[in-house]
Amino acid sequence: MPYFDVASSAPLHPVARQALQASLDEGWADPARLYREGRRARLLLDAAREAAAEAVGCRPDELVFTPSGTRAVHLGISGALAGRRRVGRHLVVSAVEHSSVLHAATSYEGAGGGADGESVTEVPVDRSGAVSPAAYAAALRDDTALACLQSANHEVGTEQPVAEVAEACRAAGVPLLVDAAQSLAWGPVAGAWSLLAGSAHKWGGPAGVGLLAVRKGVRFAPQDPADERESGRSAGFENIPAIVAAAASLRAVRAEAAEEAVRLRALVERIRGRIPELVPDVEVVGDPVRRLPHLVTFSCLYVDGETLLHELDRAGFSVSSGSSCTSSTLTPSHVLRAMGVLSEGNVRVSLPLGTPEEDVDRFLEVLPGVVAQVRERLGAPVTSSAQSTAGSLIVDARGKRCPIPVIELAKVIGDVPVGETVTVLSDDEAARLDIPAWCEMRGQEYVGEEPADRGTAYVVRRLA
Amino acid sequence: MPYFDVASSAPLHPVARQALQASLDEGWADPARLYREGRRARLLLDAAREAAAEAVGCRPDELVFTPSGTRAVHLGISGALAGRRRVGRHLVVSAVEHSSVLHAATSYEGAGGGADGESVTEVPVDRSGAVSPAAYAAALRDDTALACLQSANHEVGTEQPVAEVAEACRAAGVPLLVDAAQSLAWGPVAGAWSLLAGSAHKWGGPAGVGLLAVRKGVRFAPQDPADERESGRSAGFENIPAIVAAAASLRAVRAEAAEEAVRLRALVERIRGRIPELVPDVEVVGDPVRRLPHLVTFSCLYVDGETLLHELDRAGFSVSSGSSCTSSTLTPSHVLRAMGVLSEGNVRVSLPLGTPEEDVDRFLEVLPGVVAQVRERLGAPVTSSAQSTAGSLIVDARGKRCPIPVIELAKVIGDVPVGETVTVLSDDEAARLDIPAWCEMRGQEYVGEEPADRGTAYVVRRLA
Repeated sequence: MPYFDVASSAPLHPVARQALQASLDEGWADPARLYREGRRARLLLDAAREAAAEAVGCRPDELVFTPSGTRAVHLGISGALAGRRRVGRHLVVSAVEHSSVLHAATSYEGAGGGADGESVTEVPVDRSGAVSPAAYAAALRDDTALACLQSANHEVGTEQPVAEVAEACRAAGVPLLVDAAQSLAWGPVAGAWSLLAGSAHKWGGPAGVGLLAVRKGVRFAPQDPADERESGRSAGFENIPAIVAAAASLRAVRAEAAEEAVRLRALVERIRGRIPELVPDVEVVGDPVRRLPHLVTFSCLYVDGETLLHELDRAGFSVSSGSSCTSSTLTPSHVLRAMGVLSEGNVRVSLPLGTPEEDVDRFLEVLPGVVAQVRERLGAPVTSSAQSTAGSLIVDARGKRCPIPVIELAKVIGDVPVGETVTVLSDDEAARLDIPAWCEMRGQEYVGEEPADRGTAYVVRRLA
Repeated sequence: MPYFDVASSAPLHPVARQALQASLDEGWADPARLYREGRRARLLLDAAREAAAEAVGCRPDELVFTPSGTRAVHLGISGALAGRRRVGRHLVVSAVEHSSVLHAATSYEGAGGGADGESVTEVPVDRSGAVSPAAYAAALRDDTALACLQSANHEVGTEQPVAEVAEACRAAGVPLLVDAAQSLAWGPVAGAWSLLAGSAHKWGGPAGVGLLAVRKGVRFAPQDPADERESGRSAGFENIPAIVAAAASLRAVRAEAAEEAVRLRALVERIRGRIPELVPDVEVVGDPVRRLPHLVTFSCLYVDGETLLHELDRAGFSVSSGSSCTSSTLTPSHVLRAMGVLSEGNVRVSLPLGTPEEDVDRFLEVLPGVVAQVRERLGAPVTSSAQSTAGSLIVDARGKRCPIPVIELAKVIGDVPVGETVTVLSDDEAARLDIPAWCEMRGQEYVGEEPADRGTAYVVRRLA
């Protein structure tokens, strides 16, 4: 039963399991105590910190353990912003950061109600999901307290130009926090970053362990209530057995990383190449070259993401999706939106270490049938060159959710003459992203949107 | 090698270990995902929540898991204060709360610099360490947003009158947050509390798991950046194997609780009774009756706490201390200070479940010799009735740390006539607590303190 969602959480690495079990007997006591059980716990904690720091590429006294990657991000952002409060209250983030970064930014901007001058700039990304170093540099200001950039995107795998952005930040005197959650298994983050956050369960360590590195010299003022643990940077009793397992497994995956990267890169390459051949009306998104080795994302026109995930699960494949109908908010992934790519029928495949080639081949065998079946059930159009029969048309798709509005559009586009328009009325948030994306894929012209009674009118001109 | 510091952290309960290992294979995936691995993780999490809620005495949807007891306290206090911001900005705590509560209070008071009217009232305790329900009730005001009271004290074991205080809070319309970290192993907290915090590694669960219960109807506004996990009340990926182990071990210790409480209570009774017989100049502190079954604290005059802990460790006993010289801040425990009891030579003994009687007897055999040896090394006075030889005396103990100032005082008290005074000059913070405590133990009169050059002058009148 292939699990292809390691970007959400990786199964426990055998080394992590071994280290966890071995340290349950030695690591339960309070490492701040001076008696033997405390001293033993302290030794384990110190050794884990050294190992993790080496893998991250920092000094042990620059690294603290947190209860999760999310907490590492929250603590890192709030501490760095507070440490540079006198410099200014401007925060720069990319538009495709993990929600933990974007929510911290929203919380910061909302905290003073803007009254204290807190502001956030989101740097946009291109269609591949990457920021441009020049655009990022242009967003830095005299009052910028902190800049954040992920090492690689968690939904589409695109690597960000961290080293170039770090250099621009250094030149501007702005600390850069790198969310390295998706890439730490593959190697240290290059470039002169100032703060770095990671999450153990993404690399095969146990849940409950994140890490936050803060380079010496970076101004940092923890904002939580005082606590003597972890240099005052992460409150609460340390989970030492899990920390030991996290550090041990990071070393272990790093030892396999170079070889596995080559092997998984080739498997992902196969998926990237074969899917457009096997499945009609599909868009593979994310940078084809500057990307994580193990992750690929694609979107299928005329497909409901939730049904697709469900059918793939029935067929034995566990994958995730950024489609709106698989999210609790019914809005498409902010990453796909920022990239301006199709969100309907979205599937993210992220391969665990050691994924057998056969599993990938089997996935490629199964996928076309599953997609076709979902499309058939939804009454999706078969690609054809219909004859024009009428003037402009209006399609009322209000009250219908993704992918129905796009399916309705595709069904009637052939009914209007070339040069005429189809207007789709829709109250589904995903339409705003998916109708323009459909036009791009189909070679039709997206004219624009305007408010309509109970929804929005999306206007498309037939070109072909 | 007896470990007598379960109040700091308990060894992993066998049931916790078993549950942890059993759920490593099923509990690593993201419980928010719809595929089979996610559904399995969700089932484990839901079952653990039900078990923990039953043990706490609340509904499952009132309980969230946090990464530690400290985080449960921080999140509970900040969320409850923010939820009632319109009512007021006054917080009530007892003077002997755990540092996580007191630090959250300090952080709250400091946050607006008092500019937004945040204020904190600390309710004092009596010499046994308990608040009076009447005094607590008197501290509640119209603008009180939240009140906090521990179920039992972590340093001296005294149980607080939670049910009575909860009733006073209910009458005043103020929610009460109970820090139940020390007592949850022994049973649910009685009374109409509104919020409750706990910590799994205190009851034999793994580190990395705390719990926060918020009763339906309590206004609560989480203050961290938004996160969809744990009802938006505790950010970060859930550590499900540890949560499963925490819930399973809470049930397991509860099954043993009634019987073990009787057995350990008798062992603690033995320690409480025997120590004053075996060790001269000792003060057993905390309520002798309304107390945790497994915990006892005493202080030894003329003894340096750090040396005592070190010697007990050499003799095979792991205990902790609230003495100033064992703390990083060189100030005595705020609990002992609030009680007004002796802090020098302080030892806390907290017995794990299943502690054999022989270990306690062996401790009682070893302790008198260890104390005597430490005293001898420090040149402590042997209790005697010295003759008066002079008028008032001044002892300069500046630059000398606890217990030396008290030792110097004790050495010369017999040198002044009854009715005359000894003035001790000291710059050690512990003297402020320990000189009055010595007077109380010795039947001498503590006249008072006044500022002196480089320190404080403590004046004692000889009565006997």
